[in-house]
Amino acid sequence: MHKITILIHCKDRPNIIATVTNFIAEKDGNIVYIDQHVDREQNIFFMRLESEFAKKSFSADTFRDAFKNTLGDAFNMKWRIYSSERKPKMALFISKYDHCLYDLLGRYNSGELNLEIPFIISNHLDLKPIADNFKIPFYHVPVTNDTKEKAEQQQLELLEAHKIDFIVLARYMQIVSDRLISKYPNKIINIHHSFLPAFVGAKPYHSAFKRGVKIIGATSHYVTEELDAGPIIDQGVARVSHTHSIEDLIAKGRDLEKIVLANAVKLHATRKVMVYNNKTVIFS
Amino acid sequence: MHKITILIHCKDRPNIIATVTNFIAEKDGNIVYIDQHVDREQNIFFMRLESEFAKKSFSADTFRDAFKNTLGDAFNMKWRIYSSERKPKMALFISKYDHCLYDLLGRYNSGELNLEIPFIISNHLDLKPIADNFKIPFYHVPVTNDTKEKAEQQQLELLEAHKIDFIVLARYMQIVSDRLISKYPNKIINIHHSFLPAFVGAKPYHSAFKRGVKIIGATSHYVTEELDAGPIIDQGVARVSHTHSIEDLIAKGRDLEKIVLANAVKLHATRKVMVYNNKTVIFS
Amino acid sequence: MHKITILIHCKDRPNIIATVTNFIAEKDGNIVYIDQHVDREQNIFFMRLESEFAKKSFSADTFRDAFKNTLGDAFNMKWRIYSSERKPKMALFISKYDHCLYDLLGRYNSGELNLEIPFIISNHLDLKPIADNFKIPFYHVPVTNDTKEKAEQQQLELLEAHKIDFIVLARYMQIVSDRLISKYPNKIINIHHSFLPAFVGAKPYHSAFKRGVKIIGATSHYVTEELDAGPIIDQGVARVSHTHSIEDLIAKGRDLEKIVLANAVKLHATRKVMVYNNKTVIFS
Amino acid sequence: MHKITILIHCKDRPNIIATVTNFIAEKDGNIVYIDQHVDREQNIFFMRLESEFAKKSFSADTFRDAFKNTLGDAFNMKWRIYSSERKPKMALFISKYDHCLYDLLGRYNSGELNLEIPFIISNHLDLKPIADNFKIPFYHVPVTNDTKEKAEQQQLELLEAHKIDFIVLARYMQIVSDRLISKYPNKIINIHHSFLPAFVGAKPYHSAFKRGVKIIGATSHYVTEELDAGPIIDQGVARVSHTHSIEDLIAKGRDLEKIVLANAVKLHATRKVMVYNNKTVIFS
Repeated sequence: MHKITILIHCKDRPNIIATVTNFIAEKDGNIVYIDQHVDREQNIFFMRLESEFAKKSFSADTFRDAFKNTLGDAFNMKWRIYSSERKPKMALFISKYDHCLYDLLGRYNSGELNLEIPFIISNHLDLKPIADNFKIPFYHVPVTNDTKEKAEQQQLELLEAHKIDFIVLARYMQIVSDRLISKYPNKIINIHHSFLPAFVGAKPYHSAFKRGVKIIGATSHYVTEELDAGPIIDQGVARVSHTHSIEDLIAKGRDLEKIVLANAVKLHATRKVMVYNNKTVIFS
Repeated sequence: MHKITILIHCKDRPNIIATVTNFIAEKDGNIVYIDQHVDREQNIFFMRLESEFAKKSFSADTFRDAFKNTLGDAFNMKWRIYSSERKPKMALFISKYDHCLYDLLGRYNSGELNLEIPFIISNHLDLKPIADNFKIPFYHVPVTNDTKEKAEQQQLELLEAHKIDFIVLARYMQIVSDRLISKYPNKIINIHHSFLPAFVGAKPYHSAFKRGVKIIGATSHYVTEELDAGPIIDQGVARVSHTHSIEDLIAKGRDLEKIVLANAVKLHATRKVMVYNNKTVIFS
Repeated sequence: MHKITILIHCKDRPNIIATVTNFIAEKDGNIVYIDQHVDREQNIFFMRLESEFAKKSFSADTFRDAFKNTLGDAFNMKWRIYSSERKPKMALFISKYDHCLYDLLGRYNSGELNLEIPFIISNHLDLKPIADNFKIPFYHVPVTNDTKEKAEQQQLELLEAHKIDFIVLARYMQIVSDRLISKYPNKIINIHHSFLPAFVGAKPYHSAFKRGVKIIGATSHYVTEELDAGPIIDQGVARVSHTHSIEDLIAKGRDLEKIVLANAVKLHATRKVMVYNNKTVIFS
Repeated sequence: MHKITILIHCKDRPNIIATVTNFIAEKDGNIVYIDQHVDREQNIFFMRLESEFAKKSFSADTFRDAFKNTLGDAFNMKWRIYSSERKPKMALFISKYDHCLYDLLGRYNSGELNLEIPFIISNHLDLKPIADNFKIPFYHVPVTNDTKEKAEQQQLELLEAHKIDFIVLARYMQIVSDRLISKYPNKIINIHHSFLPAFVGAKPYHSAFKRGVKIIGATSHYVTEELDAGPIIDQGVARVSHTHSIEDLIAKGRDLEKIVLANAVKLHATRKVMVYNNKTVIFS
């Protein structure tokens, strides 16, 4: 069987669901999953659909063309069709913190992640041994004020050469350039170590400690030009008390960061996230 | 607009979704919500669908007949169709504990619950003033070993006279008879004050204290003949420590019970629960 | 037995614990609870201690004098000694929302709260029937731009006449004057319907919806002159998703607000909260 | 400074706290942490105390003798005194699952764990490369029905040779012998992949799936002769729904297991756990 995943969003109007499901049936597809959402404020319709087709009769390109002509244009849809035959390719950007890296590679190794990791980029050499242990190519791309532009160029070439689908900043600690963001819109996932929108920017655990909050958090989100303001994918929280030092918050936060980032990676890689109006619709 | 909710389950096979959505479209209905699930172990297909029809042309009875003849029988479906014009009627069974009662009536008053409460039954008179304050008819049906059968008869007559759709045992503290259960299958909701299947039966907080658990729970479930073993609708938990006495667990538990029972009531009343194989599918 | 609770904070230095416990022993007191905390950043020592004394030989005033002369002055302590014989008196300020009111009065009635509620103040008459049902005096003190000062005067007179220990703003919806705050420093508890410091100010659920957060929260805190910036006592959170409307967030939030406010009331009434540097130490 | 941690439990009676703190003061110790608990049901007093002494004047052995003679015997205490100079030694028993192993070694490497890991024992060779990467000696001790006794002997010799303080079964998948348990009472930590006491024994995720629970859990506990019935140290939970397969539960559970086991290891290694009556007092 050939399996595809279709993501759609468009202005809401009657009969979208029936029309789409009917179209699939006409093409001899069997719908195995359907989920939909209507944003009543914006009047936008969202749908995610998985469908199976008998292998020999099915051509993905023909299907895409037919979909575009019959449905996409008629409903003025934004749509994407993914074939399950191709796993998404994820590039990991890291720096010196190893906890998210260990966590993601551990899940990757155990088969929990349905994706490929063609390479890891870091601005430091510290974590190269971990990449080596997991047998993943490691590129050292140092970033200084002088080399910023050159580094970015090198990153872009690697990303294009490997046909990377999305980028994960696993505590990368560098601000990503607008050029990279515009090439990978809603395709760069960051983990911010606070419960956004509280404590935007650097040193959020220090700010949380100072404010005396009783719960800390972590937030995975797509990177946009405005710092820490992109669409939120997942958030997690943990209780803290006056007995916790800043170091304790940081240690507790590592556990949050790992899980919240891994959730975002899994949701993105299985095409369960749609972005609209700087917010996410998560079909899970 | 006339709005209906359709719940379906049947053996999984290709094209159910497209066939059903097509049927709705033919009847000039607009699908505004669709959700589905396949139990891969049992190979059972579940669907919940909301559809709107123009008021004048729509007859619920005609639609039901057509659905039965065209789809229900062909796919050997179990199906139910609810009209949104009729709010479900809920009977409350209570005893001496007031926290779930206050909670449900507070939500009812605030418009949070989409249902009617024709009456409250209690085996004690203690909470009658609360029912009076909220202006809900209160029936005192004492239950002793001698009067059990008579009490049950009285309950059944009240339930039938008021065309009750489902029953909520808000800490009713009495075991419900098999006769009542068989008349209201998967329509009697109980709140058990533990994280089932741990601590089945009486005094679960005492058992939890004795075992030294670090988390306590509450479970809302449908009542079946086997005690505390019916399909689970919702569960909630709270952290506890060695500093908590049994009384502390009971007080903490009250908060859990209120929320977990209210969730079950809301899910059932909006027809979001399907039961199969002593488990629930929750379309939320 | 006569039971007292002692709260202390002072600059940290060696031997405070031994000196205090020794002092209690000399006065024939038996320590039944002791907890302490050192803020390593500020170098401040905090202690909470409960001690029992035989009834006849004990005079609270004599003990207080001795404590002051022997310990308080020597260690330059800030200290408070509470007798368990006197329950704290709490004034409730409310407006039109009833959920926190029902919740607190339900707990009060069930004996869960160790305090007295001499009266309720509201700027509207809507919730008077609830106060009546629970047999608690209700004062209607309307607040308009013109009557603000007069209303405040009336509030202060009521608070003083009833020897109120602390005030709870149970969704009072009015900004409390600096004069009131300065008369009841760290004695006015507010419930803010967001996870502070995110979404300070009005309509936080609307802001949370707009930002697309995946978790919403509620925060109980002491009121200070700066809006929503006072010491945090407790926080709670709940998961939300794209399927939740603003109304859904508000409904979910009500459950959080009730529990987070009740926790703060219980902690304050049992003298388990100490404030320092705009943060709280919670001995629970 | 020399720092010690004292753990005490004994029958509750007046003046224990003052007597102990006084004793420390007489020995020129400065108490930097004190916490206590009274089990009102069993009438047992528990205390944990950290104290600092000037290096040159302090002898741990002399202090122990004095404590025993002055306090321990007089109050009929069970007591232990730990010097902070010696880190506890932990042996890791593993099998084929790597997630808890990666997690613990990652924390160990980052300095989050205040302990030493002299070696890892496994009944399989699969995870040896991970031990090698982290440069921790790895012993392959196969366990078959025939070699059980021999394997156990080998384990005991390794434990004794390395002066191991406690053992962690990081998904070891073998039932530990009574002989080992009796040599390391309340010193063998296991992670059970359910919310005990629900789903004791093998395949708990399968049982949780079958019962249709809405929350799954993991439990770290000390190993006793009765399977999965030892004192609970920590528990964690995660929400699940009808959409989760058994494989999904297992994947979600891995995250719980890692955190709940790591918490137990940290609590035990910092001597914050006391066991009494098959329950734990956790001073955290």
